[in-house]
Amino acid sequence: MSARGGAVQTLYWTGKRLELVDQRALPQRLDYVACASAAETAQAIRDMVVRGAPAIGCAAAFGIALEARRLTEAGSAARAEALQQAFATLRASRPTAVNLFWALDRMQAALAAVAGRSGAEVAAALVVEAQSITAEDIECNRAMGRRGAALVPDGARIMTHCNAGALATAGYGTALGVVRAARDAGKRVSVIANETRPFQQGARLTAWEMVQERIPVTLVTDSMAGHLMQTGKVDLVVVGADRVAANGDVANKIGTYTLAVLAARHGLPFYVAAPCSTIDLAIASGAAIPIEERAAAEVTGFRGERWAPEGVAVANPAFDVTPAGLVSALITERGIVSAPSAAGLRALFD
Amino acid sequence: MSARGGAVQTLYWTGKRLELVDQRALPQRLDYVACASAAETAQAIRDMVVRGAPAIGCAAAFGIALEARRLTEAGSAARAEALQQAFATLRASRPTAVNLFWALDRMQAALAAVAGRSGAEVAAALVVEAQSITAEDIECNRAMGRRGAALVPDGARIMTHCNAGALATAGYGTALGVVRAARDAGKRVSVIANETRPFQQGARLTAWEMVQERIPVTLVTDSMAGHLMQTGKVDLVVVGADRVAANGDVANKIGTYTLAVLAARHGLPFYVAAPCSTIDLAIASGAAIPIEERAAAEVTGFRGERWAPEGVAVANPAFDVTPAGLVSALITERGIVSAPSAAGLRALFD
Repeated sequence: MSARGGAVQTLYWTGKRLELVDQRALPQRLDYVACASAAETAQAIRDMVVRGAPAIGCAAAFGIALEARRLTEAGSAARAEALQQAFATLRASRPTAVNLFWALDRMQAALAAVAGRSGAEVAAALVVEAQSITAEDIECNRAMGRRGAALVPDGARIMTHCNAGALATAGYGTALGVVRAARDAGKRVSVIANETRPFQQGARLTAWEMVQERIPVTLVTDSMAGHLMQTGKVDLVVVGADRVAANGDVANKIGTYTLAVLAARHGLPFYVAAPCSTIDLAIASGAAIPIEERAAAEVTGFRGERWAPEGVAVANPAFDVTPAGLVSALITERGIVSAPSAAGLRALFD
Repeated sequence: MSARGGAVQTLYWTGKRLELVDQRALPQRLDYVACASAAETAQAIRDMVVRGAPAIGCAAAFGIALEARRLTEAGSAARAEALQQAFATLRASRPTAVNLFWALDRMQAALAAVAGRSGAEVAAALVVEAQSITAEDIECNRAMGRRGAALVPDGARIMTHCNAGALATAGYGTALGVVRAARDAGKRVSVIANETRPFQQGARLTAWEMVQERIPVTLVTDSMAGHLMQTGKVDLVVVGADRVAANGDVANKIGTYTLAVLAARHGLPFYVAAPCSTIDLAIASGAAIPIEERAAAEVTGFRGERWAPEGVAVANPAFDVTPAGLVSALITERGIVSAPSAAGLRALFD
C-alpha cells in the first residue's frame, strides 16, 4: 500500500504521469489510475476516480501540467490554443467544487508568468505550480487541523458526512484533519461516519481511513443521524465543503444540510472545515452555487447491484446548501470564523 | 403475478399454508415463501420476508392458526402447551411493531373463546380469526385512505419513507393507502420515495408499488430529503408507524424522525397514517418503545455486495421515535387526530 504520513496517498506525480488512487474501488481494492493528459484527468474527475474539492483542484492542476508536457514540441500558438482547450475541458468536468476553478486560475497565472518561454520551460513551470498547489494543500490541512482541534473536547464523539479526509485532499484531510489533529493532541476521539449514499464515501473511504489509523469509527446509514443525536450519542458534527459563498453559506455533499438542521435542533456544534481556496467571494450566497445532478444509476443501485424497479424516475443532486446561520464555525487554515458572515469571511482575505 | 385490487397480494392463506411474498427479493423477483408452522412464520418475520407492522400482525395470526392445525390430533394439555410456545416464539420475533402483539392478543382471546373444544374446532376458529384480522386490515386501510385523502391537495408532491404500502399490510397500505385514495378521488398526486437504507424498502417496494399503478414516483436517497424540501419540491410528508405511544409519539422506520424535523423547519405537514391497532395505550411515551437493533451486515453492504471495510463498528437501529409535537396529524380508520395528544388518542377508543 502506498502511503505518506500514515495515510493513503491520494495522488502523486511520477515525473511523467499523474497517478490517482481509484476511489471507486476502495476499500476492496487499492488501485491507481494513471492520467497522461488533461482529457484523461477530466475523465477521472467526472467519473469520481478522484473526488473531494481539494483533491479535484490538485488533480486538475496536474492535468494542465500533463498537457503542457505533451506540447513541448508544438509551436507556441498551437501550444497556447491546446492549453486553453485543456483548461476548458477541465473546467467543465464538475460544477460545484470551487477548488477546481481556483486551482485552474492559479495554473493560468503560472502560465501567464512564463509567456514567451520555450515549451519545455512552460511545462516545467506548470509542473512546479501543480506540485506547489498539492504541497500547500497538505500544509493547509495540517494548519486547519491544529486550529480545529481546539474546538474538539476530550472524549468527543464526532459525526462526519461523506469523506473530507486524506482521500478528499492531497493528504491529511479537512474534517478528518481536525479529527487527526485532535487525536494527535492527545484527545480521545471517536467518529460516527454517515455512509453517504449514493456513492458511499463515508462507508468506503472515511471508515477505511479511520480503521487504518485505529481511530474508533462507527458506520451508520444517513437516516440514523437524527436518532443518534436525539439519543445523546453525538457531541459535534464536522464536515468539509465544496464551495463556501461570500456570506458563509456552504455547499457540501448531499445530506449535509439535513445534518445541520438536526444539529441545530439538538444544540450541537456544526463545524465546516475548509481551506480558503474553497471560499468563493464572487458568489454572494449559496443560492447561486451550481448544484451538480448526477446519473440515475447511482441511486437505483450501487456497483453491479441494481435494486430499484424499472420505470422509476430519479433525482440525484450531488450537493446541497447549508445556510450560514446553521454553521457554528468555519475552520480554515488562516483562522476560525465563528457564526460565519460576509464580514467574517472577508477578514480572512485582508 | 398474483394480485388483488390492482396491487400485489402480500400474504394469503391457501387453506393449508400461509404464503408470503418474499419482500427481500422484490422488485427483481416476485417469489412466495410458504410457512407451515409458527416457527417458520416467526423466522419469516425475523428475516423480513414479511415486514410492515400490519402485515407482521396478520402473518403472526396465521402462524398461530398454522400451529393449531398441526395440533388437531394432540391431547388438549399438549396442544395448549404447544400453542403457548408458539405464541412465545412469535412474540419474540421482532420487538418494535405493536401490531404483532395486538394480533397475538386477539388470537389468544379467540383461543380462550373455544376452550374445551376439539382440536379441529380450535384450529378452525383460529383460522377464521386470522382471516378476520387480515380482512379487517384491508378495510381499515381503505377507511384511513378516504379520511387521509381529504388532507391531500390536488397536485400534491408527497414524500414518504420506507414502505407503508400494500406490502406492509394485508393490502392497500397505510401511508400509500392515503396516496391511492387521493388518486382515486381524482387528485393528481406524485410520490417522492426515500430509498430507506439499509433495507431499501422505499427503493424496492414503494417505488415498485407506485410504478405498478402508474402513480408518478421519484426515487431519492434518504440524504436528499432536506434539499428537496429546501428547494420547494415537497408539499407534505406521510409515513406509516410501527407503534404509537399513548401521548402520540411515533416509532417508525429509522429516518422518520429526521424527516419530521425537516418538515417542521420547512412548515410542511407531517402526517402519520396508522390503524388503531398500532396505538399502544399501555406505553406512556415513545421513550418506552423498544427499538430493535439489527445485524451489522445490513449496513456494511446490501444483498451480495459489501462495501464497508473490515474492522468498522456499526450501529443499526431499525426504528426511531418522532415526538408527538412534530406530528401534524395522525390518520386512523376511526378519524384524524390533529396535533396528537394523550386526550386525542384516548378519544379514538371511547
